[in-house]
Amino acid sequence: MLRKLYIRSITGAQMMRRELFVAASGGHCGKEDGKGKNKDMDKFRTEKDTFGELKVPADKLYGAQTMRSKLNFPIGDIAERMPMPVIQAMGILKKACAEVNKEFGLDAKIAEAVSCACDDVISGKYYRQGHFPLVIWQTGSGTQTNMNTNEVISNAAIKMLGGELGSKKPVHPNDHVNKSQSSNDTFPAAIHISVGMELNERLLPAVAHLRDALKAKSDEFKDIIKIGRTHLMDAVPLTLGQEFSGYVQQLTYAQDRIKACLPRVYDLALGGTAVGTGLNTHKGFAEKVAKRIAELTCLPFVSAPNKFEALGARDAMVEVHGVLNTIAVSLMKIANDIRFLGSGPRCGLGELQLPENEPGSSIMPGKVNPTQCESMTMLCAQVMGNQVAVTVGGATGHFELNVFKPLIVSNVLRSIRLLSDGSMTFSKNCVEGIQANKENIAKIMNESLMLVTALNPHIGYDKAAAIAKTAHQNKTTLKEEALKTGITEEQFKEWVDPKKMLGPK
Amino acid sequence: MLRKLYIRSITGAQMMRRELFVAASGGHCGKEDGKGKNKDMDKFRTEKDTFGELKVPADKLYGAQTMRSKLNFPIGDIAERMPMPVIQAMGILKKACAEVNKEFGLDAKIAEAVSCACDDVISGKYYRQGHFPLVIWQTGSGTQTNMNTNEVISNAAIKMLGGELGSKKPVHPNDHVNKSQSSNDTFPAAIHISVGMELNERLLPAVAHLRDALKAKSDEFKDIIKIGRTHLMDAVPLTLGQEFSGYVQQLTYAQDRIKACLPRVYDLALGGTAVGTGLNTHKGFAEKVAKRIAELTCLPFVSAPNKFEALGARDAMVEVHGVLNTIAVSLMKIANDIRFLGSGPRCGLGELQLPENEPGSSIMPGKVNPTQCESMTMLCAQVMGNQVAVTVGGATGHFELNVFKPLIVSNVLRSIRLLSDGSMTFSKNCVEGIQANKENIAKIMNESLMLVTALNPHIGYDKAAAIAKTAHQNKTTLKEEALKTGITEEQFKEWVDPKKMLGPK
Amino acid sequence: MLRKLYIRSITGAQMMRRELFVAASGGHCGKEDGKGKNKDMDKFRTEKDTFGELKVPADKLYGAQTMRSKLNFPIGDIAERMPMPVIQAMGILKKACAEVNKEFGLDAKIAEAVSCACDDVISGKYYRQGHFPLVIWQTGSGTQTNMNTNEVISNAAIKMLGGELGSKKPVHPNDHVNKSQSSNDTFPAAIHISVGMELNERLLPAVAHLRDALKAKSDEFKDIIKIGRTHLMDAVPLTLGQEFSGYVQQLTYAQDRIKACLPRVYDLALGGTAVGTGLNTHKGFAEKVAKRIAELTCLPFVSAPNKFEALGARDAMVEVHGVLNTIAVSLMKIANDIRFLGSGPRCGLGELQLPENEPGSSIMPGKVNPTQCESMTMLCAQVMGNQVAVTVGGATGHFELNVFKPLIVSNVLRSIRLLSDGSMTFSKNCVEGIQANKENIAKIMNESLMLVTALNPHIGYDKAAAIAKTAHQNKTTLKEEALKTGITEEQFKEWVDPKKMLGPK
Amino acid sequence: MLRKLYIRSITGAQMMRRELFVAASGGHCGKEDGKGKNKDMDKFRTEKDTFGELKVPADKLYGAQTMRSKLNFPIGDIAERMPMPVIQAMGILKKACAEVNKEFGLDAKIAEAVSCACDDVISGKYYRQGHFPLVIWQTGSGTQTNMNTNEVISNAAIKMLGGELGSKKPVHPNDHVNKSQSSNDTFPAAIHISVGMELNERLLPAVAHLRDALKAKSDEFKDIIKIGRTHLMDAVPLTLGQEFSGYVQQLTYAQDRIKACLPRVYDLALGGTAVGTGLNTHKGFAEKVAKRIAELTCLPFVSAPNKFEALGARDAMVEVHGVLNTIAVSLMKIANDIRFLGSGPRCGLGELQLPENEPGSSIMPGKVNPTQCESMTMLCAQVMGNQVAVTVGGATGHFELNVFKPLIVSNVLRSIRLLSDGSMTFSKNCVEGIQANKENIAKIMNESLMLVTALNPHIGYDKAAAIAKTAHQNKTTLKEEALKTGITEEQFKEWVDPKKMLGPK
Repeated sequence: MLRKLYIRSITGAQMMRRELFVAASGGHCGKEDGKGKNKDMDKFRTEKDTFGELKVPADKLYGAQTMRSKLNFPIGDIAERMPMPVIQAMGILKKACAEVNKEFGLDAKIAEAVSCACDDVISGKYYRQGHFPLVIWQTGSGTQTNMNTNEVISNAAIKMLGGELGSKKPVHPNDHVNKSQSSNDTFPAAIHISVGMELNERLLPAVAHLRDALKAKSDEFKDIIKIGRTHLMDAVPLTLGQEFSGYVQQLTYAQDRIKACLPRVYDLALGGTAVGTGLNTHKGFAEKVAKRIAELTCLPFVSAPNKFEALGARDAMVEVHGVLNTIAVSLMKIANDIRFLGSGPRCGLGELQLPENEPGSSIMPGKVNPTQCESMTMLCAQVMGNQVAVTVGGATGHFELNVFKPLIVSNVLRSIRLLSDGSMTFSKNCVEGIQANKENIAKIMNESLMLVTALNPHIGYDKAAAIAKTAHQNKTTLKEEALKTGITEEQFKEWVDPKKMLGPK
Repeated sequence: MLRKLYIRSITGAQMMRRELFVAASGGHCGKEDGKGKNKDMDKFRTEKDTFGELKVPADKLYGAQTMRSKLNFPIGDIAERMPMPVIQAMGILKKACAEVNKEFGLDAKIAEAVSCACDDVISGKYYRQGHFPLVIWQTGSGTQTNMNTNEVISNAAIKMLGGELGSKKPVHPNDHVNKSQSSNDTFPAAIHISVGMELNERLLPAVAHLRDALKAKSDEFKDIIKIGRTHLMDAVPLTLGQEFSGYVQQLTYAQDRIKACLPRVYDLALGGTAVGTGLNTHKGFAEKVAKRIAELTCLPFVSAPNKFEALGARDAMVEVHGVLNTIAVSLMKIANDIRFLGSGPRCGLGELQLPENEPGSSIMPGKVNPTQCESMTMLCAQVMGNQVAVTVGGATGHFELNVFKPLIVSNVLRSIRLLSDGSMTFSKNCVEGIQANKENIAKIMNESLMLVTALNPHIGYDKAAAIAKTAHQNKTTLKEEALKTGITEEQFKEWVDPKKMLGPK
Repeated sequence: MLRKLYIRSITGAQMMRRELFVAASGGHCGKEDGKGKNKDMDKFRTEKDTFGELKVPADKLYGAQTMRSKLNFPIGDIAERMPMPVIQAMGILKKACAEVNKEFGLDAKIAEAVSCACDDVISGKYYRQGHFPLVIWQTGSGTQTNMNTNEVISNAAIKMLGGELGSKKPVHPNDHVNKSQSSNDTFPAAIHISVGMELNERLLPAVAHLRDALKAKSDEFKDIIKIGRTHLMDAVPLTLGQEFSGYVQQLTYAQDRIKACLPRVYDLALGGTAVGTGLNTHKGFAEKVAKRIAELTCLPFVSAPNKFEALGARDAMVEVHGVLNTIAVSLMKIANDIRFLGSGPRCGLGELQLPENEPGSSIMPGKVNPTQCESMTMLCAQVMGNQVAVTVGGATGHFELNVFKPLIVSNVLRSIRLLSDGSMTFSKNCVEGIQANKENIAKIMNESLMLVTALNPHIGYDKAAAIAKTAHQNKTTLKEEALKTGITEEQFKEWVDPKKMLGPK
Repeated sequence: MLRKLYIRSITGAQMMRRELFVAASGGHCGKEDGKGKNKDMDKFRTEKDTFGELKVPADKLYGAQTMRSKLNFPIGDIAERMPMPVIQAMGILKKACAEVNKEFGLDAKIAEAVSCACDDVISGKYYRQGHFPLVIWQTGSGTQTNMNTNEVISNAAIKMLGGELGSKKPVHPNDHVNKSQSSNDTFPAAIHISVGMELNERLLPAVAHLRDALKAKSDEFKDIIKIGRTHLMDAVPLTLGQEFSGYVQQLTYAQDRIKACLPRVYDLALGGTAVGTGLNTHKGFAEKVAKRIAELTCLPFVSAPNKFEALGARDAMVEVHGVLNTIAVSLMKIANDIRFLGSGPRCGLGELQLPENEPGSSIMPGKVNPTQCESMTMLCAQVMGNQVAVTVGGATGHFELNVFKPLIVSNVLRSIRLLSDGSMTFSKNCVEGIQANKENIAKIMNESLMLVTALNPHIGYDKAAAIAKTAHQNKTTLKEEALKTGITEEQFKEWVDPKKMLGPK
């Protein structure tokens, strides 16, 4: 019975989840083919937290708290992992904290080992190697990911200093790596750092790339006059370049919008510790750490002016996602226009020829499905959905701590990633290869009856309207009917000139 | 059978709709009581458009196109009317256009009559009198509302000049009032003008008012030390003033957020006419009109840099609503916190006493339901919903014209109105009257076990933890258990001092 | 300065609100023109609740609690009023309660007066006359609307029995009208009754009407063969009737979906009183009341199996709105298809001719804007937004009472109303008048290259593909190229027959 | 400069993506440590489609079309893969089609090899081994995933029959595996099959499990009387068992809701082929395939009554997600209630003791953070967001084919998975371990003033209210004040008995 096969696969999926984690961590899924069985997998060491002891894979840098979270939250598969940029940002802030803590008395050797260990977190190496296995669906404060980071960094530093993994000596995850910090101020700071960096390093360049690709097309198409369409119906003409210039403007604004919300993203919660008061930190710690993070990232991060807001709310993320949602709206409009303008080849609008990236139909030439537009509009719809997840998460925090943080950051980062990758792919595999079907564009524009408006000043509104009406009834062209009324071919050509309809007088 | 009564009421609702329109227009619903039958209701004049003739109520300034739309879109009741600020903005732009058209050759007498007639549109008088009866659910370009405005203004100007209503002489709705314009550029401009004004004149002051009310409370409460709560669980202390300072910061940011999106709101589509090319306008018209509108409104409106974007997209509204959504998120968090802190009187958190505005329970004193918080959180949920409506509308435009404009603007304006009125009402009827239950706040904080952290430096982590654990098991206080271990009363008082836990060292 | 004019209008808007309420209540806005000043407006009587005394308009049936709510919640204008169906449902349940209370000992004369007074609530008369002025944005339990109802009914009954308005004698709003009830069980019951009735009396008939209109078109178009379009690109043919049959099926399912969620709508909270335990009711009250309501409404309402769920959650409304959202999705797809198929007249797809309801362009015949489709798609977007408002409201209830009820019911009822009115209007003003442009449909289908698939069995895949490819390059027809390869005209006609491509072999 | 490190990591992320795919497919990420370099990675074979040749990893069963899609859509990382249940459903339907095609003449040997190869798709083995590497963000019809499946199955069957991978002999991916099918009918069928199975095999059992866990608690707590809370304020009492019974009812309804939407899920598009007409299938094929799928899955799948709807719309998925959204609303309410009732230990409501799964605070005993509630409410927020993504995708299809299918199905399946895993985890790690703080529950209920309502029948409303008022002012108990007025201790005990307030008289 196949149903059982399927049901077993659900249990199997749990297994797969484990396997994927292993795989993701650079391990070897050798079990499938029976050879290359990874001996290390059988080795465990014992780690311990205030709750007791737990066996942890010997080749992993994480400790008991991470392991406990893995066991307590078996929700979803590898697709639900805490996104890498959060972990990288955690690495950045732990490095900055270690260096500032040194100024405030942390043993220099420990501080330097911690700072050094952070580099492999920042580069993503430890994430790729599976040392950060936790999913989004954990504590709403991200505490377990903060502890995961503390455990990995302390163990990496311990290794560096010749100590024993899990011994917490000479580098303690809490006392040293987490010094002057709390999950409650590190995790929100990591959110802001990761989102600030991804906006700058990923989304802004991708939007600029797509904008430039559209600008190049707008320039290329600047002399191609075409029918305008309002309400989907034939209207007065414009150039294809003008049409594309609207898209360019949408993306220019997209850049402005991202920049307009960045100031709130640059505010860091660090220094607030558990409830925003900064208990257990030193005066000046918050500012020094923010400064160091700004240096490390080349982005103007500062200490948040009010730490109670910085812990209790996640409004800046809701604001950022409002901008991402706006960009999704822009991109959906652009991608929709392009696929409709490219529809056909015979029975659609047929004004654009989109690049053919894959077989559309094995027999019908010209059936180039607008797959890049489909991919783009789908991911825009996802961003619109993520907007609601972020909104609900942002609205439902209580008192001194919003506890929807992993949800919020994972949606913001996913939206950034989808919009960024989507913009690049759409640029390269669609926009850059768009060609105008000049012949067809000219043909349908000339068949249009809207050009009749150009006759008004010459023969009057009523006569002009009558010509259009007759052409519509007879399914003829304006010209045919105009000539019948006594207008000469030369007059028609001079008067009805779409080129003269492209701007104000 | 009551079911029939109800069903008749549905048909009746259609009737009510008409009656309400009449009522809204200053008419008399005398029919109910049989007396005072309004003779004017029976008087109609005939108006005409290119489609033919239609009877229009004699006392109304609108014409055939408006009437036709009323008949074609019987959707919903008076609650679905196009919002007043859109009509007022239409008045502003028609006035500016008339004045600039005069510079470009429009007969001065006509221009002045039009400009003058606009004032009663701008003041809202004509809206209140029922001359703008159309609902949101009409043409997606707002064409019918543009024509409604043209008809009302031309008839008002005709009246002023002694002409006959509906004669279109000497002031023609299209040739004069709509000169150099198209629905396609006036309606988006009206959207931006109305939203720009409502953000400035309504929302910003309301947010400032609420922010200041919260700031006053933050100051008033600055010395009240209370338990902090993270994950809803007891945490280290902060002051009630600090807690409220977080809310103040949220609203300070709210103001920043509104201001950050205004630049795109100030871009006006006027001058783009039908498809963005500016066909049938004069060079300079767009800039002059924008300048005049800026003067009239004292807001820095400018001509949009790209008219194709300005007609084909409504991204600026999606962006604005992203900000409104963020403000809704902030307000929901604040209102939720306040009602939870005010819960009780005996079995809740009981830290705040909210003002009693209406009977909560006829018998139980102290049952002051947080009705203002409930109203506020409900309207925030509405704004979160409106966000999706605006997003879908913004994303689904095609080619040269987005045709979800009435939907979009009605949601943006409703959200602004709800947030504004909600903020004012919440300030006045809730925040300003909040009192701290100082006694209870002190009592529960002192019962808390979290203060144990203050013992660490003096007796060591392990001993401190043991005290807390015993107190938890015995349901006693920290102090009771601490004294048992040999700590003196003076020591406890000096060491466990919440005042010393409110900031960094 | 016009800005001042506008700002005054905001204050004025508050005034308008009052005026509209007055107007809506059958009063006279005589102030505008100075004459006809309503003397009644100056008359007030004093009403009183446990909070104290308040002046209430003498001609209104509501009392102090209603007046207090009006003053405490000045949010929005008349568009924000509690929807009429809720008030009507309140009338139904108050009638049923009075009759059942009589069985449990309520004085027969009072019970009958109350029952009788309810009829004018049920018919909507009192709502239209302005006796229910409260907005949605009030207490989240709807308590104030429950009290508004109690006050109106008691005063109406008092009037009937010759007593003095506001005296609470011989009919007391709480002791008699609200007997065995609480706002906490009446308001949710009113929600279920109003939604149950609106779904049955308004939405189901409207959906059926639109379905039948589409079915008639599907039948009418059953022999019109046209090009199919997938990915917007030309595909193999189908009939226009088949295409419309998909829309018919969507609406058939819509009916199934509504019916599938009705069982949970028919569960009534009545009998739960304040927290669900039924304190202060009699055993059997809940069942008898539900039975009476079922009789009055001819709908199978029953007493909810668990009153704690019935008060603490509003899940059934979230479920219902999920269905409304699905119907909005169906209607948006249908309306989008229809407007695209009707696009043109020359430069679009041009397969359908939509009815011309208003001037599309004063000069261009054939520019029939798909305004009904635009109205429909806009209102569908609104329903999609309302879905989120209802979801947030449903998710955010706490303990024994969800306090987002007015928000929830107003959105559900608005969505029902928009979808119902929208479906009727769309049927009558669009679908019923759609004509097929047979000639154009045949022309573009015959130009299509997709028919080449029909050649495969006769000349082989490769040869067929070559013919299509050549036709595509040469911009010729399949037939032209086929004949060149030696196929005869008779063969082509017999082989390439779209009629044979409309179903399985 | 760390910024560069981070930026490189973005490029690295692209690399990681590839590596993860490799890892996910059972490959070896040997590159990191320099050893264990996988020789197989260097081996490629050449596959070919109508577009040309492409190198494909030698150890993979997919072919050129899959490879092309990988290259064309580099969007996101492994988290964006097409979900496994879709692939498994594809396996089920390909198996059924092969078997039915045999009846219609497909070579028996080929049919059997195909059917057999499908088993490893259905079990998920090939997915786990990386043979299905495509992401969600591809063609909106899922064509590439259909081709991926055809390629994998044909190669697996070829292997089985001793042929050469990629040779398409003797088993051709299109001619044999895809016989009588089109992406346009297989992918929607796979959506319905996967969702139907996941609802039945995963969600329904998980909801039942959580419902039963809550029911056990409701029974366990049936005699614990506690204060009720409405508007968060103290209200009349109920039992903790009654409170939990509301949650049980919500989940009972959840099961009903799922079942109510299943009929539309069981409709299969198969047999519609490219546009719904069923071109290139045999009469009876659709019904036979549906019957076979019903047998294989033990679920009552049938052939959809209208294939045009089945291809052009995805309404059934929007409907299903409306139900998932409702369940998310229910679970969020339940999890919120539980964490608030468990808040404290000293300064919250303190009625419940949640199980302690991980260290909450290293020093403060009793600080058990409600992490399971946080995880649950976060994932509910995600489902609410997914609702919008599915809605936008469902609403934006055009003509004969909805092209938002991968978006839609991935959101529906993710929501099912999150709600299922979340319900199981929440049951096991939270609900099952909840304990009532009986002492505290009794204490705060007895301190409550709401019990005063019980005095009404004995001493009258006014006297009772006075007692409560005095107690409120004096911060004393009702009893203390009652005794002062002459009520005896026995009377008070008899009259004020919460046990008598738990139901109707």
